[in-house]
Amino acid sequence: MAKNVTREEDYSKWYNDLVFRAGLAENSAVRGCMVIKPYGYAIWEKMQAQLDKRFKETGHQNAYFPLFVPKSMFEAEEKNAEGFAKECAVVTHYRLKTDPNDKTKLIVDPEAKLEEELIVRPTSEAIIWSTYKGWIQSYRDLPILINQWANVVRWEMRTRLFLRTSEFLWQEGHTAHATKAEAIVEAEKMLDVYSEFAEEFMAMPVIRGKKGESERFAGAEETYCIEAMMQDGRALQAGTSHFLGQNFAKAFDVKFADKEGKLEHVWATSWGVSTRLMGALVMTHSDDEGLVLPPKLAPIQVAIIPIYKSPEELTLVSEAALELTSKLKELGISVKYDDDDNRRPGWKFAEYETKGVPVRVAIGPRDLAEGKVELVRRDTKEKSIVDLAGVEHTIAQLMEDIQNNLFERALKFKNDRIQKVDTYTEFKEKLEKEGGFYLVHWDGTIETEALIKAETQATIRCIPLDSPEEDGVCMVTGKPSKFRVVLAKAY
Amino acid sequence: MAKNVTREEDYSKWYNDLVFRAGLAENSAVRGCMVIKPYGYAIWEKMQAQLDKRFKETGHQNAYFPLFVPKSMFEAEEKNAEGFAKECAVVTHYRLKTDPNDKTKLIVDPEAKLEEELIVRPTSEAIIWSTYKGWIQSYRDLPILINQWANVVRWEMRTRLFLRTSEFLWQEGHTAHATKAEAIVEAEKMLDVYSEFAEEFMAMPVIRGKKGESERFAGAEETYCIEAMMQDGRALQAGTSHFLGQNFAKAFDVKFADKEGKLEHVWATSWGVSTRLMGALVMTHSDDEGLVLPPKLAPIQVAIIPIYKSPEELTLVSEAALELTSKLKELGISVKYDDDDNRRPGWKFAEYETKGVPVRVAIGPRDLAEGKVELVRRDTKEKSIVDLAGVEHTIAQLMEDIQNNLFERALKFKNDRIQKVDTYTEFKEKLEKEGGFYLVHWDGTIETEALIKAETQATIRCIPLDSPEEDGVCMVTGKPSKFRVVLAKAY
Repeated sequence: MAKNVTREEDYSKWYNDLVFRAGLAENSAVRGCMVIKPYGYAIWEKMQAQLDKRFKETGHQNAYFPLFVPKSMFEAEEKNAEGFAKECAVVTHYRLKTDPNDKTKLIVDPEAKLEEELIVRPTSEAIIWSTYKGWIQSYRDLPILINQWANVVRWEMRTRLFLRTSEFLWQEGHTAHATKAEAIVEAEKMLDVYSEFAEEFMAMPVIRGKKGESERFAGAEETYCIEAMMQDGRALQAGTSHFLGQNFAKAFDVKFADKEGKLEHVWATSWGVSTRLMGALVMTHSDDEGLVLPPKLAPIQVAIIPIYKSPEELTLVSEAALELTSKLKELGISVKYDDDDNRRPGWKFAEYETKGVPVRVAIGPRDLAEGKVELVRRDTKEKSIVDLAGVEHTIAQLMEDIQNNLFERALKFKNDRIQKVDTYTEFKEKLEKEGGFYLVHWDGTIETEALIKAETQATIRCIPLDSPEEDGVCMVTGKPSKFRVVLAKAY
Repeated sequence: MAKNVTREEDYSKWYNDLVFRAGLAENSAVRGCMVIKPYGYAIWEKMQAQLDKRFKETGHQNAYFPLFVPKSMFEAEEKNAEGFAKECAVVTHYRLKTDPNDKTKLIVDPEAKLEEELIVRPTSEAIIWSTYKGWIQSYRDLPILINQWANVVRWEMRTRLFLRTSEFLWQEGHTAHATKAEAIVEAEKMLDVYSEFAEEFMAMPVIRGKKGESERFAGAEETYCIEAMMQDGRALQAGTSHFLGQNFAKAFDVKFADKEGKLEHVWATSWGVSTRLMGALVMTHSDDEGLVLPPKLAPIQVAIIPIYKSPEELTLVSEAALELTSKLKELGISVKYDDDDNRRPGWKFAEYETKGVPVRVAIGPRDLAEGKVELVRRDTKEKSIVDLAGVEHTIAQLMEDIQNNLFERALKFKNDRIQKVDTYTEFKEKLEKEGGFYLVHWDGTIETEALIKAETQATIRCIPLDSPEEDGVCMVTGKPSKFRVVLAKAY
């Protein structure tokens, strides 16, 4: 077996290889679109289940809106169309026919041209707000708190599995409110849902912040975001929550009568996370041997592997393994007992290591004779021989320990790589040498941001919500600044 | 409030109005595409959850494949392309640009024409089998048991909410096997999953059968189906499971090495149900007042409505209502306590009747003083005054009773409308007058089927799996026949 590329050697190749090797996803025959394989999809389903639960607990309901958006709706919504909406998949025809010159070929039927082109949704504000127009008359119809799980398409030139693909899966919340204050509370609440999910389930520490003007969503008044640090020191935007003001209500003429009967435009938010989180998960915890999954998102939490030389030994070992399996299941722990006779234990050890299974249990006749089994935890690779009696509780405790350890480890990694710098020269030197995040004073202008980006590739990731007010001067222009922003190279 | 159209007056309008009135779905601004509203989507989520559980219990895993299929893949798969694949949404371009003649308009950028057109998937056999080719080398890689939850698009000329829409949601299972026998077992197993789901959860009796040649899926050797009877006597195909033989393996050149190292084409199945089931659910149980939902799929199983004239009465009633709510929740019953002060009880009664909530509880101070509450079950509209003490158990029992009653009622309805006929004249007369299903002898030819369809609009729904062998003669041609088939008009 060829040795795997390490993170040190080539981080980007390590990532691509690992996503493929662990069975998470692969490229498809369709440019820029991926196939999410069963193991990857099982992790995504766990993410979905947790997020969906939290959305519902915070009062949201799911619904489903059309895949296609008529071109004229994008025109109604100028600002957004100026943004990513132009790089999109355009449906122009609705029929294929057999090629009259070659019966084995199909051609687009020129007679079946659409009167108006349809865009495959890059996001659903347009179609949803044109629908909300019919749902909202009075303050009694508000708030509308809806989420949609869907696929979206943005025509990307350079794609990478999970991180940037032309088609991806996501959820998009779209809410409508009677007041500005209520909409802002909603946008902030959903940012909290995202950051809690990232930290508690993905074990991925995040910085909660606001975007500057140039990174803000085109139709938004304020874009809140969570930013995580990957193992190469780059930032990854893991979720966004937008306060949209009255922009979409105005574009689609959505008004409501307040208690006094006065007509007002509705206030809006939208918020989303996508399969990009899968990439973030991989790049936060995994190592050169394979995936490292936090127990709360691992499709298989424990793999039990029998060690045996004879059918008699297998019988003995299987009995103990099956008993342990059922005890673990009773504790709500997902287990795979792998007694495939075609594979050797060493192969299985490597397989579950690649797949990031949090705990591996090996049961062999020698240990068993002494009432012992072998445990290996994936995060630290620590091996221990423990009593079989009550081992299910040891493992349950390990689930918590591993979850916590992954978070603490990632938090320390991140904190060690965030630093304040006050001069542009120092910033450029350090960024080049050390990577990571920089807290800097910035004059707040797009021009300065563009200059920094052009010269260093770093962008202003966010203005942290917990940033203390602090008088300073912009490290580039020397103009006054009131707080520090986070600068980093990003995915 | 305008009176609703009854089923008797106009079944089709009754259906459309009800789907809209109950908040299940509505037409969108995009031709043929629907918006599934939160209440409708909540029912669909319950269907999904049950089906997904059963798919996993039968060894399947979920995955996700691209939305787009390159045109050449359809060409590889001739038979299928001859079928519905031609009426489809075709993506020809990947960019819009600002119209140089009118800055407020967008036009398709002619420079951004795709080299090869992409088809929005009408079904995923092509993209999935082109992927499986890379996954299958040896018998060890088989079986592959994968399901996908996805949206698909088929360009329909005449659409109806849920029943026939250009975009719809579905699941599609795609499996690969080493032997023909194993693939047939799989196709039949999934038909069982569908029929059990339809009968146990939707309370909708179905006939399990095989399709004749003309109704068979283009790429299939055998199409199994479940057919249900709607209240107007028409048939609705509620799910299909296809034994695909080696057709797709041959089209995409997917072979595996068997234990002896010999290369063989893989055997396949595919199976699916869609949001069409929502239409079937509505048309099986609902009445002129509104939806009637089987408790197992009802998003709200119990609605509790307070009756009060003063704040003091509301306090008293609310206390009892909240206690009952928590007792019901403990029993796993979903409850809505509707104390909205802006609506009168009568309005609420009508609302929950429209929405098909299985049990309504009214709590008022007079009944309460005697330790009583009022229950109304949605299926029979029966009202009863019962003891508050222990009413949660009465309600739990009602959930079972209503679920069973709906099934028995629909079963009787169906059985009363299936009849054997032996002459074409009798068939035509009865079909015209009574509707329903007919068990007839047929000579097995496409020509006879086409004649019947042209003259009566009825089609051969299926050859029931439990059809006993019986010598007879085709009612049209007098040619010999070995068993009876089901003939009916269909959705």
